[in-house]
Amino acid sequence: MSSSYIRDLPVADAADLDAFDALFAQSSAIGATANAGLHRLAASVEDGAMRDVFGAWLRAHGFTVQVDAVGNLFGLMTFDPAAPYVLCGSHLDTQPKAGRFDGVYGVLAGAVAIASIARQLEARGETPAFNLAVVNWTNEEGARFQPSLIGSSAFIGSLSVDEAWASRDGAGVTLGEALGQIGYRGEAMLDVPVAAYLEMHVEQGVQLENQGLAIGVVRHTWAALKWRIRFDGEQNHTGPAPMAVRRDALLAAAEAIVAVRAEAERHGLDMHTSVGRLELEPNSPNVVPALTRLWVEFRSPSMALLVEAEERFRATLDLIAAHTGTTFTLESEQLRPPSQLHAGLSDLARQTCAALGVPAGDSATVAGHDAISLGRRYPAALLFVPSQGGLSHNEAEFSATSDLHQGLRVLTALLYRTCCQPELYL
Amino acid sequence: MSSSYIRDLPVADAADLDAFDALFAQSSAIGATANAGLHRLAASVEDGAMRDVFGAWLRAHGFTVQVDAVGNLFGLMTFDPAAPYVLCGSHLDTQPKAGRFDGVYGVLAGAVAIASIARQLEARGETPAFNLAVVNWTNEEGARFQPSLIGSSAFIGSLSVDEAWASRDGAGVTLGEALGQIGYRGEAMLDVPVAAYLEMHVEQGVQLENQGLAIGVVRHTWAALKWRIRFDGEQNHTGPAPMAVRRDALLAAAEAIVAVRAEAERHGLDMHTSVGRLELEPNSPNVVPALTRLWVEFRSPSMALLVEAEERFRATLDLIAAHTGTTFTLESEQLRPPSQLHAGLSDLARQTCAALGVPAGDSATVAGHDAISLGRRYPAALLFVPSQGGLSHNEAEFSATSDLHQGLRVLTALLYRTCCQPELYL
Repeated sequence: MSSSYIRDLPVADAADLDAFDALFAQSSAIGATANAGLHRLAASVEDGAMRDVFGAWLRAHGFTVQVDAVGNLFGLMTFDPAAPYVLCGSHLDTQPKAGRFDGVYGVLAGAVAIASIARQLEARGETPAFNLAVVNWTNEEGARFQPSLIGSSAFIGSLSVDEAWASRDGAGVTLGEALGQIGYRGEAMLDVPVAAYLEMHVEQGVQLENQGLAIGVVRHTWAALKWRIRFDGEQNHTGPAPMAVRRDALLAAAEAIVAVRAEAERHGLDMHTSVGRLELEPNSPNVVPALTRLWVEFRSPSMALLVEAEERFRATLDLIAAHTGTTFTLESEQLRPPSQLHAGLSDLARQTCAALGVPAGDSATVAGHDAISLGRRYPAALLFVPSQGGLSHNEAEFSATSDLHQGLRVLTALLYRTCCQPELYL
Repeated sequence: MSSSYIRDLPVADAADLDAFDALFAQSSAIGATANAGLHRLAASVEDGAMRDVFGAWLRAHGFTVQVDAVGNLFGLMTFDPAAPYVLCGSHLDTQPKAGRFDGVYGVLAGAVAIASIARQLEARGETPAFNLAVVNWTNEEGARFQPSLIGSSAFIGSLSVDEAWASRDGAGVTLGEALGQIGYRGEAMLDVPVAAYLEMHVEQGVQLENQGLAIGVVRHTWAALKWRIRFDGEQNHTGPAPMAVRRDALLAAAEAIVAVRAEAERHGLDMHTSVGRLELEPNSPNVVPALTRLWVEFRSPSMALLVEAEERFRATLDLIAAHTGTTFTLESEQLRPPSQLHAGLSDLARQTCAALGVPAGDSATVAGHDAISLGRRYPAALLFVPSQGGLSHNEAEFSATSDLHQGLRVLTALLYRTCCQPELYL
């Protein structure tokens, strides 16, 4: 057993790494695409199948499995029923035709790390200050259901269960219905007292790779402004209808997409923008489009830049509507301010990497993560492992097994310190 | 019976107008939308139901019903098995959430007019030179299946049955499968010898309304250039992926849509352009779009302008692809040259209107019509009745009942002359 200790820190041993590899291979097969990617939308049949496999693994390794009203799946490892939990997790859902690593890594690594710690604590005869739990948050991606981060937002109370259940996918199915269909809609939210939250994730960027680091400790997040905009035009015949009378909702959308991109060009590296989703009615070759919906994102480290971009874009929308004879409606608007992860827990993560001799640095995240939700309420840390070429939300997303294993060793040691040595960060 | 004759021309009588109104009301109920429109896509369940109703009406009124391989539905009124037919028809399919008049009017008016003439010829003891037949052409709209005009194109041999059957809708269902499902895929194309073709249609424009005319006789068509363009980008995360590495297929599409519109602005009234359909993958809010498909149309009375627009647009596509890091493929290209309708038959239509005291003028059509297909091979005429405000492919499409009735009277007289007095136009 001594081989799994480094400087008195319990880390994942060879059997743990094998267990992780086996679980990861199982996950990679459920919703696998022809190009070695993963297509496992939230609350889909594939998501249900993966949850079944994961729940069975947890029960076989001494966890108690519980599911809350919005489908968050907890694997509880309780040492003292009166103590709060250190939660560790991420998400098992994916984007369409996406990669095998995003989200999945953090959930499976968390489960294996907790099982390893429980086994080693028992061998040492040590009782930790806090219990441990792994969690799979529902619909982190926001692909099938919007908004993203539904499970973790409902857990911290910033989204109600009714709002979460009412979210509809493109076919009109609600999240509540979809969870019921796969058997993962629990009776109520669970009262899991939280001492701290840890999440491992693939970086989805190139900083670690470029700097030769194995771990990035995320210190802060970018702010994000997400809009859903609807343009209403008028359905007409694309042949005889004179151009002057057309009210083309797709032309308006196209001009808006170009304007959204221009906002990124204006601010260099400090602004990312995109339109990833567009709905179009009636979407027929011979018909002037009557309605479009656009999902627009602006992301920046600076709230001031976002506010400036918002004001300019609103004025642009007025011009586009006037020019195209359409009207527009801002159907939803979500401003996610920048936030800081927990300084003490993040420092502890850096110290743990140093103790293990793992090269690490500080990082920032542009993407949203469940750790950002949890961090609003609890001490939370978010750690990255390298992504090859930074490619993500793509079947070719890749992280080397050696990097995943290194991350798992770090996570085990960090979870141990977090549950056994709270005085180090609280 | 004498009341249904004007200057020795048999016209629809009051009972015929009632029969038309009743049939039109039945049609308006099959695929009716909440806003008094019609949603009856080609070879859909609703299309099948309407065909059943129409076929039953034809049989009850002395027609022989036959269906060819691509679902064209003929109602034959045969006086002399050795003689060719004067065909009259249009289409019963619609665009999504469209109007009740487009296409439907011509089919139902043709059926009622032929039944009326057959009855009146029998009363007069007169045998015409040609037989009569009404026809419902499959998938005129090109909404569910592309190209448009599938039924009439297959009939004249410019599209093969295999090509027609292989056309797929957005869900991957072929036209051959869909026709089989509603019971309207015949064994083979029919050998119906054609003497002439007549079609009544709503104008979908404002010329008749503006000029106070009841009938427009279409003399020529605009040319059309239809492209399906595919942009390939790369799926990535809309958050962390640096703007410089993104290859956004939706941004490319948006720039192309703006460029298509600019081509219309450049040429004033001599160019209509549009993008009515767009496909997008994976269409998820947090994912840089990997693939888009655009259905682009340029229409003009001038082939030279279309060729000029085509060359400029190809160069623009190269620039867009280079600028956005995408590639593009021209997946299909269809150039429909301008064509003339039959001069003798069109003159006869104008003379018939004059004989009936109906105000008529010459017209042109920007939209494609089955009469354009038929006119490539046979003497064909296309007549318009007024459309209120020119609105079409819209639930609010409207033509006054008095205008529909006036058109039906003209059609009856014109069909009579076409089948009994071929020397007037051939």
